[in-house]
Amino acid sequence: MPASNKVTLLGGSSNPNLTSAIAQTLGLTVGRCDVGRFPDGEIYAQLEEDVGGRHVVVVQSTSPPVNDHLVEILIIADACRRARAEHITAVMPYFGYARSDKRIGHGAIAARMVADLLQVVGVDQVITVDLHAPQIEGFFSIPVTNLTAVPVLSEALAAARSKDSLVIVSPDAGRMGAASIYAQQLGLPAVVLQKSRKSASEMEIKLLHGDPANKTCVIIDDMLTTGNTIVKSFEALLQAGPRPGFIVVATHGLFIAGAREKLTDLGVEEVYVTDTVSIRESDWSKLKIVSVANLIANEIMRVAG
Amino acid sequence: MPASNKVTLLGGSSNPNLTSAIAQTLGLTVGRCDVGRFPDGEIYAQLEEDVGGRHVVVVQSTSPPVNDHLVEILIIADACRRARAEHITAVMPYFGYARSDKRIGHGAIAARMVADLLQVVGVDQVITVDLHAPQIEGFFSIPVTNLTAVPVLSEALAAARSKDSLVIVSPDAGRMGAASIYAQQLGLPAVVLQKSRKSASEMEIKLLHGDPANKTCVIIDDMLTTGNTIVKSFEALLQAGPRPGFIVVATHGLFIAGAREKLTDLGVEEVYVTDTVSIRESDWSKLKIVSVANLIANEIMRVAG
Amino acid sequence: MPASNKVTLLGGSSNPNLTSAIAQTLGLTVGRCDVGRFPDGEIYAQLEEDVGGRHVVVVQSTSPPVNDHLVEILIIADACRRARAEHITAVMPYFGYARSDKRIGHGAIAARMVADLLQVVGVDQVITVDLHAPQIEGFFSIPVTNLTAVPVLSEALAAARSKDSLVIVSPDAGRMGAASIYAQQLGLPAVVLQKSRKSASEMEIKLLHGDPANKTCVIIDDMLTTGNTIVKSFEALLQAGPRPGFIVVATHGLFIAGAREKLTDLGVEEVYVTDTVSIRESDWSKLKIVSVANLIANEIMRVAG
Amino acid sequence: MPASNKVTLLGGSSNPNLTSAIAQTLGLTVGRCDVGRFPDGEIYAQLEEDVGGRHVVVVQSTSPPVNDHLVEILIIADACRRARAEHITAVMPYFGYARSDKRIGHGAIAARMVADLLQVVGVDQVITVDLHAPQIEGFFSIPVTNLTAVPVLSEALAAARSKDSLVIVSPDAGRMGAASIYAQQLGLPAVVLQKSRKSASEMEIKLLHGDPANKTCVIIDDMLTTGNTIVKSFEALLQAGPRPGFIVVATHGLFIAGAREKLTDLGVEEVYVTDTVSIRESDWSKLKIVSVANLIANEIMRVAG
Amino acid sequence: MPASNKVTLLGGSSNPNLTSAIAQTLGLTVGRCDVGRFPDGEIYAQLEEDVGGRHVVVVQSTSPPVNDHLVEILIIADACRRARAEHITAVMPYFGYARSDKRIGHGAIAARMVADLLQVVGVDQVITVDLHAPQIEGFFSIPVTNLTAVPVLSEALAAARSKDSLVIVSPDAGRMGAASIYAQQLGLPAVVLQKSRKSASEMEIKLLHGDPANKTCVIIDDMLTTGNTIVKSFEALLQAGPRPGFIVVATHGLFIAGAREKLTDLGVEEVYVTDTVSIRESDWSKLKIVSVANLIANEIMRVAG
Amino acid sequence: MPASNKVTLLGGSSNPNLTSAIAQTLGLTVGRCDVGRFPDGEIYAQLEEDVGGRHVVVVQSTSPPVNDHLVEILIIADACRRARAEHITAVMPYFGYARSDKRIGHGAIAARMVADLLQVVGVDQVITVDLHAPQIEGFFSIPVTNLTAVPVLSEALAAARSKDSLVIVSPDAGRMGAASIYAQQLGLPAVVLQKSRKSASEMEIKLLHGDPANKTCVIIDDMLTTGNTIVKSFEALLQAGPRPGFIVVATHGLFIAGAREKLTDLGVEEVYVTDTVSIRESDWSKLKIVSVANLIANEIMRVAG
Repeated sequence: MPASNKVTLLGGSSNPNLTSAIAQTLGLTVGRCDVGRFPDGEIYAQLEEDVGGRHVVVVQSTSPPVNDHLVEILIIADACRRARAEHITAVMPYFGYARSDKRIGHGAIAARMVADLLQVVGVDQVITVDLHAPQIEGFFSIPVTNLTAVPVLSEALAAARSKDSLVIVSPDAGRMGAASIYAQQLGLPAVVLQKSRKSASEMEIKLLHGDPANKTCVIIDDMLTTGNTIVKSFEALLQAGPRPGFIVVATHGLFIAGAREKLTDLGVEEVYVTDTVSIRESDWSKLKIVSVANLIANEIMRVAG
Repeated sequence: MPASNKVTLLGGSSNPNLTSAIAQTLGLTVGRCDVGRFPDGEIYAQLEEDVGGRHVVVVQSTSPPVNDHLVEILIIADACRRARAEHITAVMPYFGYARSDKRIGHGAIAARMVADLLQVVGVDQVITVDLHAPQIEGFFSIPVTNLTAVPVLSEALAAARSKDSLVIVSPDAGRMGAASIYAQQLGLPAVVLQKSRKSASEMEIKLLHGDPANKTCVIIDDMLTTGNTIVKSFEALLQAGPRPGFIVVATHGLFIAGAREKLTDLGVEEVYVTDTVSIRESDWSKLKIVSVANLIANEIMRVAG
Repeated sequence: MPASNKVTLLGGSSNPNLTSAIAQTLGLTVGRCDVGRFPDGEIYAQLEEDVGGRHVVVVQSTSPPVNDHLVEILIIADACRRARAEHITAVMPYFGYARSDKRIGHGAIAARMVADLLQVVGVDQVITVDLHAPQIEGFFSIPVTNLTAVPVLSEALAAARSKDSLVIVSPDAGRMGAASIYAQQLGLPAVVLQKSRKSASEMEIKLLHGDPANKTCVIIDDMLTTGNTIVKSFEALLQAGPRPGFIVVATHGLFIAGAREKLTDLGVEEVYVTDTVSIRESDWSKLKIVSVANLIANEIMRVAG
Repeated sequence: MPASNKVTLLGGSSNPNLTSAIAQTLGLTVGRCDVGRFPDGEIYAQLEEDVGGRHVVVVQSTSPPVNDHLVEILIIADACRRARAEHITAVMPYFGYARSDKRIGHGAIAARMVADLLQVVGVDQVITVDLHAPQIEGFFSIPVTNLTAVPVLSEALAAARSKDSLVIVSPDAGRMGAASIYAQQLGLPAVVLQKSRKSASEMEIKLLHGDPANKTCVIIDDMLTTGNTIVKSFEALLQAGPRPGFIVVATHGLFIAGAREKLTDLGVEEVYVTDTVSIRESDWSKLKIVSVANLIANEIMRVAG
Repeated sequence: MPASNKVTLLGGSSNPNLTSAIAQTLGLTVGRCDVGRFPDGEIYAQLEEDVGGRHVVVVQSTSPPVNDHLVEILIIADACRRARAEHITAVMPYFGYARSDKRIGHGAIAARMVADLLQVVGVDQVITVDLHAPQIEGFFSIPVTNLTAVPVLSEALAAARSKDSLVIVSPDAGRMGAASIYAQQLGLPAVVLQKSRKSASEMEIKLLHGDPANKTCVIIDDMLTTGNTIVKSFEALLQAGPRPGFIVVATHGLFIAGAREKLTDLGVEEVYVTDTVSIRESDWSKLKIVSVANLIANEIMRVAG
Repeated sequence: MPASNKVTLLGGSSNPNLTSAIAQTLGLTVGRCDVGRFPDGEIYAQLEEDVGGRHVVVVQSTSPPVNDHLVEILIIADACRRARAEHITAVMPYFGYARSDKRIGHGAIAARMVADLLQVVGVDQVITVDLHAPQIEGFFSIPVTNLTAVPVLSEALAAARSKDSLVIVSPDAGRMGAASIYAQQLGLPAVVLQKSRKSASEMEIKLLHGDPANKTCVIIDDMLTTGNTIVKSFEALLQAGPRPGFIVVATHGLFIAGAREKLTDLGVEEVYVTDTVSIRESDWSKLKIVSVANLIANEIMRVAG
C-alpha cells in the first residue's frame, strides 16, 4: 500500500510503536523530528527534514501525561506550519479531554478548548478513533474523521472465543448504541445495566435489562481508565444470578489507578484493548492488544494518498 | 488599598502563596475555584462563585511543570469566559516558554504559540514580570504589562549589603541592558562577560570587560534555572584574578537540575530571587526571596481599580 | 422585578406573546423594531429606537419556519451591531437544528453552523431552554445558558394530577437522564423504552424496563414534533399489559404533521408543553401550556440586571 | 469542453435545470447530494459521493424562498467542508439580499451579512451574475466573479427584433450605466427616466432625457420583481407622446406579486430574462428565457479547469 | 456641551485645527500624544497620558499624503490598544481610497482593504463625513456613522447668496441623489449633466436635463480634487446658452493638480468646502470654508457622551 | 535555474532592478502589473495578466518612502487575492518598521502591526533578509524565511581586501552576534564597542573590548541609515590609539540624512551594502553594492519551485 509521495509521517512521543506500524503499512519511514525536553520541562520540536510543501501527518495520542502530550503536538504543528507544511493532519488515536464535552456546573468545555488550540496552531484536519461523544466533531471547523475500532475488536474476540456462551454487556443505558454495534457484529444478545449517582463520589450500577445467567459477560466500553465502572458492572451482574464469566473489551486502555489489579482480582478472563494508548503488555497474559495501525493507515491513504 | 468591587481574583496551582499575598494587599479574598485533576491527569476547574460581569484576574505562573500549569490557566480562562466574565486578566509572574522567542533551525516559536493559546480561550490582557525578551509583548494582540522586579531586588540587596565592595556582573554581552539597570540603580560598576558556544553541547564564558578583582561579584540574570550559566560565569571571574566573593540576583528562581548544590559548592554568599516561581526556602539560609506581590497588586489596581 | 435600565428587549416574529410576557415580568416595554418582509420574501429589520450603548436582548425561537426565523434573528442582530449595541443577547427558547448535532453520513453539523452564524453577526451571548444535547453549548465560543423547563412542567403536572397512578416513561434509553429528573422531581417510578431502527424509514420501540400496567403513563421528551415517537411509545406500552392512561410532557411543542390528531386518536389525556414555540391552544382542551417567561426573565435579570 | 477531473458539480434546489445545463456543457454529471427537508422544515444535505480533495462547485440562487435557499447552500457547504472538499465555489446566479447593500435608517446590511455567512461555512469563492451593485464584491474577502448577462440578452434581442424602431430605456438615472452598455452593444439610442420618492410608499417616474416617440421602448433593468418600476416607467413613456411599443429586458426574472399580469395588461410585447432564477415559461408566450449556462460553465472552466 | 469624562480625544497630523475645534466644542483638551517621524520616514506615536480604560477618539483624515496619514492612524490605534484603551473610535472626516469601492479590471478594492486594516489594529467604530459611496459602510463589521455636511454647506450658501438666480448642477446622473438633496434643501431647480468616457484618458460631459441659461450654476460634488470634472461640467454648461455664473460646493476640498488655478481661470465666483481636509485659505478670497467641527462633536457626544 | 511554471513574479516600485535580476536568475519575465498613483497620491495596482491559480511572488522592500511602499504591497496583494492567486509570497528584502519590535513607553509595536496588515490582505508567506530582530518572525502566523546576506558581503570583502590588517568592529555589544558571524566567516578578530544613551537625544559609544590599533576597522551593522552610529563608532575607535583605517559593511543601505557625506568626511575607505534597498551608486566610488538576487531567487526556487 504505497502512500502518496507528498506525505511526511511524524510521531510525537505518545505512541512510537503505533507510529512505526502505520509507517510500515504505508511503506514510509517515520520522518525525522527531534522532540524533547529542556531541563525545565519545556518541550521543543526540531524538524530534521524539509516539510515545505508536504502533507504532514502527526501521530500523537493525548493520553497521560495528557498536558505534555497535548502541548507536544501543538509545538510540532507550529514547527511544521512555520516550515511551510502545506497541510497538517493530526492523527490522535486517543483524544484526551473528550469527556469534558459539556459544561458541568461552572466549568470549562475542555474538549472544545482543545479543538480551538489545535486549529490555532494550524492543524488542518484530525483523524481519531472512537471519540467519546460524536458531537466533539462539531467542536471543530476543520474536517474530523472518527474511525471506529469496534470491527477489529469484534473480530479479535470472535477469533479467540466461541460465541456460544457470550453476551454483550452495556455498562450504562447511554452506551447501548455502542453495545448494539458489538452485539450486531457478533450476533450476540445484549444485557443493559444502568448507572446512577448516589452521591457526588458514589455511583451505583444495576441490571436494567437482559439475562447474564450462565453466560460469559463481555463488558464493553469506549475507554478503560480506573476500571471502576467495570468493577461495579460486574458486581451488578454477580447479583443477577450464578457467577458469570467476564471479559472486557474497550477501544482505549489507559489502565490507571490500579485498574489491572482490580480486574485481575475480580477474575477477568481476558481484556481486549487497542494500541490507541501505548501500553506495556509483556507481563499480563490476560491482555490482548489489537492494533489500529491498519485502520489509521487506510484513512491516511484515503485523505492524503 | 481597596481594589475595585468588580475584581474577582483567582489563582491556579502554581503560586498559592503569591496569590494570597496579592489578595491581601488588595483587601480581597481569593475567589473560590476548585482546580484539580481527574485520575488520568486531566485538569478541571470549577468556579464556585459567580464571575458573570466581573473582571477576573487569574494568577498563574507557567513554571514547571510548565505544560500542566499552562493547560490549567487555559481551562480556568475557558471556564470564566463561559461563565460570562466581562474581562479576563492573566497574571503570569513567570512566563514559561519565553526563551523560545525565535525560530532555531526548523523549530517552533513556542512563546508566540502560548500567546495565541491564551488569546483563543478569551484572555483579554496579560501582566507579567521581567519577560525574557521584550519582543514577546508583540506576540500578543492584547495588552501586555511587563513589570520589572529589578528595583525591589536592588533594594533588597542594598538593604542587606554594603555597596563598597560590590560589582555587577553581566553573564553575557546580551544581558548588559539589564546589568546596566542594576548598576545604575545601585551606583555600582559593571563587569561584562561574553558567552559563546564551543559546540552544540558546550558553552564558554570569558571576561570581556571590567575588573572583578577583590570585589564581591553580583551576577545578575533574568532567570536562574540549572545554574550552569552562573557556574561558568564565576569560573571566568575566578580566572581573572584573586578569588572574588559571589552573589546571585535573578528575578525568576527555578532551581532545577541541582542548581542549589552547584551554587553552594562554588561558595555563593547569597542568592536573591523573587516569588514569581513558587519555591521552598525553609532550609537554605543563603536564599533570599523578595516578593513581587505589591508590584503586581499595584498593577492590578491600575488596570482594574 | 425592575430590569437594568441598560436593557432593550426586542422580539422577532416567532414568539410575540412570550416576548410580551417577558417584558411585563421585567417591567419593560418591548423595544420598537419593525421586522418584516419585502414582496420577494427578503427580511428587513428597522430599529425604531436608539440601541447605541445598550444591552440588547432579542427573543426569537428558530421554530418553523426555521430558516425564516433564523435569518430574521441574524438580520436583527446585524442591525443592532451596526447601531452600536454594546452587547447582544440572543434568547432562543427553542433552538432549531439542534438535532443536527453530529455528522450523519456525509452531512453537515447544522447546529454548529448555526452557532457560527450567530457569532459572525455579533451575538455575544445565548440563552436557551432544554437544548437537545448539552454538547451544543460547546459549539459556541460565547457564553450559553441552557435553562430547563422541567421544574415548571413538573409543577404544572403535580398541581393538576394526583401522583398516585402516574409513572414516568422514557421513550428511549438515551432519554433516561431527562426522565430521571422528572421521576425524581415528582417522586415517581420510571419506565424505560428502547428505540431502534428497523430500516432507514422505520423505527421500532420496545419496553426495556419497568411496569406500566394499570398506570397513567407520562411520556416525556424534550420536543414533540410529528408525535411519531409518542405513538410508537404508547403502542409499546399497550403491548405490555392492560391499557394504561396516557399523558405527554415535553418542553418544545412543534405539533407538525398531524401530531395533534394522532395523539387525540390514541386517547391522550393531557399534553403539557411550554411556550418556547408559539402555539394556538384555543380549541384543544387537552393542551396545557406552561410559560417559561419567568424562567427567562429571571435569567435576563441575572445576566443584564 | 471537458472540465477538470477535480471538479464535482453540485446543485441546491433553486435551479435544477440550470445546474443540469451547466453540467452538460462541462461534460459532467451533477454530483449526487441528497438535499431535503425534515418534517419540521429543517434542511439536510447528504453527500452521496466522496468530495474529499475535490473542487466542489455548488449552484444555488438565493431566489425566493430566499431564506430557505440561503440556508440550504450554507448547509451544503458545511457538509462539503467537513467531507474534506479542497475548494468550495458557490455559483449564485441570482444573489438575494443584494439590494440591502447599504444601511437604510437603523437597519442591517444584509448583503454583507450574507457574504459573512458564506465565508464562515467555508466557501472559498463566489461566481454570480449581474450583481445589483458592484460594491458587493467588496463585502467579501474571497474572490468574486461578477459575470454579466447583458451580451447574451442583447444578442437574443438583436436576433429576434429589427433594431430600426428600438430605443433603450433606463428606468432611472442610476441605471444609466447598464442602459449605456445595452445601447452601445445594440447601437441604439437611450432614453433616461428619473425615479423619485414622493412618500415612503409612493414613487414617481418622469422622463429626464431622450425621445421615445414612435419607438418600441426596451425597458432594461437588472431584476424584474413586482414589475412596479416597469409599470411606472411605461406610464412615464406614455405621457411623453404617442403610444410606444414596449419590451422588457432584465437579467433576473422573479415575477412576484402579479408582475406577469401587470405587464400583460400594459401590452408588453416581449419579456427577456435569463434562467438565473428558475421560472415556469410554458404558458406565457411573451416570455423569452435566455440561458446563462454557457456563461457560467465557461467561468467554471476558467477557475477550476 | 460637556463630553463624557471617559473620552480622550487625540489627533493625528492631518487636521490639527479641526481636532482643536472639536475639542473646544466638547470642552476637552486634545490628549497628549507625540506623533512624528524618524529620519527614515517611519512614523511613531507616543501616548503621553494614560488611555487605559478610556474611550479614545482619534481624529485623522486620510487626505494626501494618504498613505502616511493612513499608517499614522493605524500606529496611533495600535498604541492605544496596547495601552489598554477600552474603545477606539476613528473619526475620519475624509476617508481616502473611498473611490476604490469596486474592482476595476484586475485591481484591488482598496476601500475594503482600508476597512480591514483599521479593524485589525483594534478600531472599534468609525465616524466619517459624506462617504463617497454608502456601500463602504458594509466594508466594515464595526459600526460606521456616515455624517453629511450638505446641510451646513447649504446653510452657508443660503446665508451668502440670494437664491433667486441659483440652480443646482449635478455633474453626472450618478450624483443626482446628492444634487437632489441640495436642491430640496435650498428650494432650487436642478440641472443634470452626464459624464461618459470617450477613451481611457478622456471623459466627456454633456447637458442631460434642465436649463442653466441666465443662472448662477452651483456645481456640487462630494469631493473636489483636480477640478477636472468641474471644468468639464462648466464647459458643458457654457455650450448650453449664455454664459452662466458659477459656484462650486463640495464636502471635501483636496485642491490638487492646480485645481485652484483652473477654477479661477474659469471665473468661479465662490468655492464652498468643509474642513474635512486641512486647507490653506488665507490667500484665496473665493474660498469659503465651512467647519464640520460641530457636526462631528455632536456625534462624538452621541456615541461616547 | 528554471522556476516552477506556477510562479508569477511581480514587483512593486521599490526595487525594479533587483526584481529584474531575480526574474533573470529564475528564467522568468516579470509579470505585467501596472502599479501607479492617482493625482491625489492614492495607489492603484492593475494586474495585466491572469494570476488565477498561480503562486504569485511580489518583490517589494518597505524602504523609504516606507508608508507608500507598504500600502503599495498591500494593494498589490489585495488585487492578487481577488484575482484568485493560489498563494501569495511577499519578498521584502528590506523590512521597514523592524526596529519598532517592542513597546517603547506607550507606543505601538509597528513591526507586529505590519505583520498583521500583510496577513489580513492575504499574504501567505514572507521572505526577507537580515531581519533586524529574529523575534519578528514570531509576529507572523505565516511562514517567514529570514535569509542572511552576511556570506555574500563577507565574500565580497574577502575578494577585495587582504585580510591581514582587518578587524571586525561591532558598534554595540548587542550586535556581537552578527559581528561574530562576520569574524568567523572571515577569520578575523573582533572589537566590541558599547553604545549607551546619555540623554534622550544623545548617545555615547565607547570601546568595550579588543584592540583596533593599526588595523583597518570593518564596522558592521544590519542597516546603515543616518550613519550616526558609524560616526560615533569611528570616533570611539580613534580615541583608542593611532588612526585606524575604516570600512563599513551593512546589509541594508538607506543612506539618509547625509549619511554619505558624513562617511566621506570621516575618510571611509569603502562601504559595502546589498541591493535590498534600491540605491544610486553611479557617482560614489567608495560604494560597493553586492546583489542578493541569487540568494532570493534560490529561496523562491525552494518554496515555489
